Amino acid sequence: MNTAQDHSAAPSPELIFETLTAYQRSAALRAAIELDLFRAVGEGPGDVASLARQCGASERGMRILCDYLTILGFLAKQDGHYGYTPSSAVFLDPRSPACIGSISGFLGHPAMAEPFNRLADIVRSGSTALQGDGSVEPENPIWVKFAHSMAPMMGLMAGPLGVMVLDGLGGPLRVLDIAAGHGLFGIEVAKLNPQARITAVDWAAVLEVARANARKAGVEQRYHLLPGSAFEVQFGGPYDIVLLTNFLHHFDPPTCVELLRKVRAALKPGGRVAALEFVPDEDRVSPPMAAGFSLVMLASTRGGDAYTFRELEKMYREAGLGDVRAHPLPRSPHTVVMGRG
Amino acid sequence: MNTAQDHSAAPSPELIFETLTAYQRSAALRAAIELDLFRAVGEGPGDVASLARQCGASERGMRILCDYLTILGFLAKQDGHYGYTPSSAVFLDPRSPACIGSISGFLGHPAMAEPFNRLADIVRSGSTALQGDGSVEPENPIWVKFAHSMAPMMGLMAGPLGVMVLDGLGGPLRVLDIAAGHGLFGIEVAKLNPQARITAVDWAAVLEVARANARKAGVEQRYHLLPGSAFEVQFGGPYDIVLLTNFLHHFDPPTCVELLRKVRAALKPGGRVAALEFVPDEDRVSPPMAAGFSLVMLASTRGGDAYTFRELEKMYREAGLGDVRAHPLPRSPHTVVMGRG
Repeated sequence: MNTAQDHSAAPSPELIFETLTAYQRSAALRAAIELDLFRAVGEGPGDVASLARQCGASERGMRILCDYLTILGFLAKQDGHYGYTPSSAVFLDPRSPACIGSISGFLGHPAMAEPFNRLADIVRSGSTALQGDGSVEPENPIWVKFAHSMAPMMGLMAGPLGVMVLDGLGGPLRVLDIAAGHGLFGIEVAKLNPQARITAVDWAAVLEVARANARKAGVEQRYHLLPGSAFEVQFGGPYDIVLLTNFLHHFDPPTCVELLRKVRAALKPGGRVAALEFVPDEDRVSPPMAAGFSLVMLASTRGGDAYTFRELEKMYREAGLGDVRAHPLPRSPHTVVMGRG
Repeated sequence: MNTAQDHSAAPSPELIFETLTAYQRSAALRAAIELDLFRAVGEGPGDVASLARQCGASERGMRILCDYLTILGFLAKQDGHYGYTPSSAVFLDPRSPACIGSISGFLGHPAMAEPFNRLADIVRSGSTALQGDGSVEPENPIWVKFAHSMAPMMGLMAGPLGVMVLDGLGGPLRVLDIAAGHGLFGIEVAKLNPQARITAVDWAAVLEVARANARKAGVEQRYHLLPGSAFEVQFGGPYDIVLLTNFLHHFDPPTCVELLRKVRAALKPGGRVAALEFVPDEDRVSPPMAAGFSLVMLASTRGGDAYTFRELEKMYREAGLGDVRAHPLPRSPHTVVMGRG
């Protein structure tokens, strides 16, 4: 969102045209990932005929798609050959360990995108047009998709979050990972502290993804599954650390406070809560990515939001948690909001 | 498309995330226009409660939408009140004579947007997933929508195009306006030259829009309708000027040459042809808006494209037209390509 609040510019219809056609950009990158184009680019030689053959596509379609991706900054074109840009080499080449191309599967999933076709109605009603509780409806299969698709992107944050949450804490530890999803955050803590035992809460089908990731990371022996709703299961405990990643924003403040109270009751005295959140500034329009996330919560939940630090701090305090602090994650739109029991 | 080919930047996942969620931007602006939010902003006072009441919407929905539009640069927020930015004051306030909000109706129309949900398939096949000839299927009602919705935006170009095409030509004139749509280009010529008679070609239902605009402009007496396919109707003539606005890009080069031959046959010796086109540079990836238009033609036609000047010049010459020149329109992604019979 590079265009944010640049009111100094001369009036121009361009931004309006660009915004109303922005869906075409999403479609182009989604199509490229679906066609496995970024693998073909890496294999070379990168001319239209070769790329078309490699991807099982037409030359006309491939030429136009590749030119469009060049305009967007995902390919570099020289003498009729297409190659990576620095960003696509690192984040879209499937051979790159940092490849996040799979996020297309979640961000472009019909269940995520469809409500935006009815956004005016949603603004009228003030609540998601999705059935029931929207994206947080029990056992919603979208979270299995999330766990698979978003793992590589979330994985980029797991390292810094793990270090931040542990903050040097060694020795035996019990960690509760609520809405574990792919499980990567709890798994990172288990990797950093070989005596940490993780209990992961999520829908049963989602936890299968987390379990597979724990196995891959070699921490399966210390990884326990607690399937069900975070609002209904018995957490057990007490825990040294509770992780609440990408979860609070789905609910209204009273529901968040209810959950945080339950979390506090499962914490050891002095234990730590760490929520991973999009935290906009008090003006609610900056920074752009964190603030803009509110719209996704409008479209997909009944009462969720991207909460400011002041709002989160108030919820933490109402739930009896203290020492509330915000730690922005480097090179990420996310913030870790820590509190203590 | 501000992001075009900025390969100097450090690798970042942000552009990928931003692009895959860009459809949300289109949806937000479309919803705001549908809710008539930009009228309410002008009426004031601009706080969330008032805007929600004025637009018949919820406060939660309105707050989140207005914050998002602020992030995008369409609203300015101060002390909890929303106002126009320079661009939205001129181009989105319905009371502004330059308001182009209606383009949302065409650019966001399901018939335009839907093929982008199947873009990978379209790249595979190399041709639109729409039925038959796609957007240029006979009597396609999308062009009535186009004529209504896009008129304000096209109107911004009509003045400069009219002056350019006439180039001082006075006295009695016959003008053929092919794919007239809203009719504004031919009407502009009629306004600039009171002895010009316009013959407008388009589907019958579309020509009703053009006729209404001609009446509004007071040139109805010199405005004649020729309903049907530009490839099939008898043009009559001979004409001093033939306008071909936003039309050639829908067809493959042989079809364009066929049409240009028919145009030349209807021209007086030395008569002028003026095509309004998106004309990318020879690299086909700049300027971004003109070059990016190819993707729309891939999605919605069998063989259309945004042609380079060299390609258009070749078509003109094959059709027997000479003195081919490109005249970029100021402050627009469009170019007028002139030729002579």
